[in-house]
Amino acid sequence: MKNNNSAYQQLHDHFDKIGELENIAEIAYWDEATMMPEGSGETRGKSLATLSGVIHELKTDPKIGDWLSKSEGDNSLDPWQKANVFEIRRIFDECSVIPVALAKELEQRSFQSEQAWRNYRADNDWSSMLPLLSSLVDLVREKAKTLGDVKGANPYDALLDQYEPGMTSESIDTEFAELKHFLPDFIEEVIKTQDRNKPKDLAGPFEVNKQRALGLQVMKSMGFNFDKGRLDVSHHPFCGGTPDDTRITTRYNEDSFEESLMGVIHETGHALYEQGLPTSWRNQPVGLARSMALHESQSLLMEMQACRSKEFLEFLTPSIQDTFAGDNAKDLSWSSENIQRLYLKVERGFIRVDADEATYPMHIILRFEMERDLINGDIEVKDIPELWDDKMLAYLGLTTKGNYRDGCLQDVHWPSGLFGYFPSYTIGAMTAAQLFRTATQSQSDILSAIGEGNFSPLVSWLNNHIHSRGSSVSFDQLLIDATGEPLNSTHFIEHLKSRYLEK
Amino acid sequence: MKNNNSAYQQLHDHFDKIGELENIAEIAYWDEATMMPEGSGETRGKSLATLSGVIHELKTDPKIGDWLSKSEGDNSLDPWQKANVFEIRRIFDECSVIPVALAKELEQRSFQSEQAWRNYRADNDWSSMLPLLSSLVDLVREKAKTLGDVKGANPYDALLDQYEPGMTSESIDTEFAELKHFLPDFIEEVIKTQDRNKPKDLAGPFEVNKQRALGLQVMKSMGFNFDKGRLDVSHHPFCGGTPDDTRITTRYNEDSFEESLMGVIHETGHALYEQGLPTSWRNQPVGLARSMALHESQSLLMEMQACRSKEFLEFLTPSIQDTFAGDNAKDLSWSSENIQRLYLKVERGFIRVDADEATYPMHIILRFEMERDLINGDIEVKDIPELWDDKMLAYLGLTTKGNYRDGCLQDVHWPSGLFGYFPSYTIGAMTAAQLFRTATQSQSDILSAIGEGNFSPLVSWLNNHIHSRGSSVSFDQLLIDATGEPLNSTHFIEHLKSRYLEK
Repeated sequence: MKNNNSAYQQLHDHFDKIGELENIAEIAYWDEATMMPEGSGETRGKSLATLSGVIHELKTDPKIGDWLSKSEGDNSLDPWQKANVFEIRRIFDECSVIPVALAKELEQRSFQSEQAWRNYRADNDWSSMLPLLSSLVDLVREKAKTLGDVKGANPYDALLDQYEPGMTSESIDTEFAELKHFLPDFIEEVIKTQDRNKPKDLAGPFEVNKQRALGLQVMKSMGFNFDKGRLDVSHHPFCGGTPDDTRITTRYNEDSFEESLMGVIHETGHALYEQGLPTSWRNQPVGLARSMALHESQSLLMEMQACRSKEFLEFLTPSIQDTFAGDNAKDLSWSSENIQRLYLKVERGFIRVDADEATYPMHIILRFEMERDLINGDIEVKDIPELWDDKMLAYLGLTTKGNYRDGCLQDVHWPSGLFGYFPSYTIGAMTAAQLFRTATQSQSDILSAIGEGNFSPLVSWLNNHIHSRGSSVSFDQLLIDATGEPLNSTHFIEHLKSRYLEK
Repeated sequence: MKNNNSAYQQLHDHFDKIGELENIAEIAYWDEATMMPEGSGETRGKSLATLSGVIHELKTDPKIGDWLSKSEGDNSLDPWQKANVFEIRRIFDECSVIPVALAKELEQRSFQSEQAWRNYRADNDWSSMLPLLSSLVDLVREKAKTLGDVKGANPYDALLDQYEPGMTSESIDTEFAELKHFLPDFIEEVIKTQDRNKPKDLAGPFEVNKQRALGLQVMKSMGFNFDKGRLDVSHHPFCGGTPDDTRITTRYNEDSFEESLMGVIHETGHALYEQGLPTSWRNQPVGLARSMALHESQSLLMEMQACRSKEFLEFLTPSIQDTFAGDNAKDLSWSSENIQRLYLKVERGFIRVDADEATYPMHIILRFEMERDLINGDIEVKDIPELWDDKMLAYLGLTTKGNYRDGCLQDVHWPSGLFGYFPSYTIGAMTAAQLFRTATQSQSDILSAIGEGNFSPLVSWLNNHIHSRGSSVSFDQLLIDATGEPLNSTHFIEHLKSRYLEK
């Protein structure tokens, strides 16, 4: 950055401005989900749409094209600057290639369809959803084809690439095939094993204040920086805000603390990634998190790998007892063994978001296969319910016939126009297993420290290998640098075997 | 709005966009004061500065000039549209006339000076503040002169006009002269009278939760719309957000509930104005609150006129007793009479924000006279401490020699570059008295309803005469339409006499 007037510097300044506006938008989104009074939703929606319009104008400013051409030939740039140019090119092309009219229509129709879905799901009403979803899919296909033509990819892969740059449906299919082969028998075996020793439910109620206090305590152990972040309540838990002001949410259920506690841990995993991004690249595309799957790997690494480990749950049990058990702490249901059984219970169910780590990938594979074929034009929206039922039966042995609410209407993704995102969840789970295995094998103190409630060695390893690298290299390269090999389902399968079968 | 491509319609759409962005900025400011973690201040500051930069660019877009010229000659516009054009002209000229370099330097120097002031005030360090404030005043004078040249006004009046369009220092001086003549003897007399029957302090502590519950109850009676608004906590109480999402704040002191309760009432007065603005003119300049003084009149009307009235305090006493008195409700200190004496206590003090309604104007007159002379170049920053002491002695009989902390360093306004704002407080108090008198005289049910905790008749009167009119006419015209005469100190003086002397 020696030359203040260089094309690169102008790109940098321009994206600084964009980043600052996105920071404000993030806070307004967080506010909408946590603080905003109910009656203010409509005006907030308009205001946020105006702000995204301004951001979109800035991202498609034709000057970016000139600055990019010059910067792409500028050999004086260092590797991070070059990576930044690469990321900006991707953003600029993606935003510029979609005609404004199509983008607006997509936004409007997604909004309408999502609003309608809330009622149609509640009413189990597929036939009313069908025309809305069909017309939305037509638009998404148009967008996917346009993007695909530019990227030289098939339509679905073009969408996938937005969330997982460089990932293709072919490579995903290869890894998913391993899971599809392994999981059904494995699930059957685990369920049989667990049936011999069922967990006992914990008796509530569990005060919200106490749940919050325990969540904050765990966040603190995990290294969440409260000087630049908060924990609040929202209907759907999420991690929002910015790297310098990271805001996670949870929801509390007085009948059970288990979900909220693991939810807080999950979102803290996301938050630690955000808070660990390179400070000297704030607001620049190269300074952002690498991909959705990598983000999910950070939350799942904390939730599934680190915090459902025997080591951590044994450490946490006394805190759980102190917080909730009262005079019953000696009861067997409050034992570390029972708490572990509760947190590792495997069950086949209809609902993706309620699934455990063993059955979850089957929900994802089902969705991935269907949305790929849908966007590529190999199936139509009207085929969804029957296909859904077939696949649920084949993958999880459950029929969803006529039960759209708990079947193909259960997720917000498709009704809101989001296609190509689902694979990220399971790629994230595989990545988490691969990273955690490498981390704990290369540094023996990581797991023992977690057993003492000390996450510093783990977070420090993640920070060095993932967080601090931002988007400076590709997902594949990050994983190779961190673990010595590209994404590989073996580690996830090994993890499941060792956790659920070798006792 | 028949012609969608008319110059007027383009102005309208452009200011709609500006308004939407300002809505987002308002939420981000509110968040900064109420929710933001401490360590996120620096990045928030940058992000907000970027957003105001974008808004400023939009407000000075040269296209506005063309659209304005055409709209100003468009006879097909209705009166509200014409008023909207008038307001847009004012905004455009004010924003365009200040060179960008000056605006930026002012912003930076104000920020630095305000930051420094926090420490210098705490350290009672005038000599370190002097050079910072002098250089800031130089810039403000430059801005004031530039504005004045365009408006054909002297420099100070040009600043005043930003907060009170159409108001001049000469007209203010005339009304203030009446107060300056009346108040000193009046204060002396009230203090003597009150000395014969001093109020008893109420014994705390007063739980924050209980204070909050009582505040919410009063807000509800007053007609605050919680479907589009909230009550929270911040260091400095304020009313922020937007007309469709109005957010007031307070702060709680466990040793005393009186200040917080009246603070909530005060901010609710502001909020009712915002929530009562005309919905069909959202985001348009003509749909905004008329002026700072009119805003202050709405908060003071509620706090000083309606809610310190005998009628309301008698109504509220049982709630106060139920909330806080416990077994001591029968104690004389908890009687309605004593609570009234507490809320109407008159005392001469150093600090403006702690002043009662009788002494407050003297603090304002002192500041008005000094800032007017300062901006017009008749005095210099170095003269401030001596002049401050002279005036405090003359107006309130107190010396502040050497006590800068409680003297000329007490307010944030000047160190943050805000000159021309102080008069609004006392113009607001006079306006409140004038409006309340007219309202209660023209509708006898208003005061009796307040005595039953029912604010509907009052709020409905204010809504008809003030809130719903937005900025469709001038301050003077609004007041004449509502009360039959322009701003007039008589009503405020009569109010003080009748409340404090005729018992």
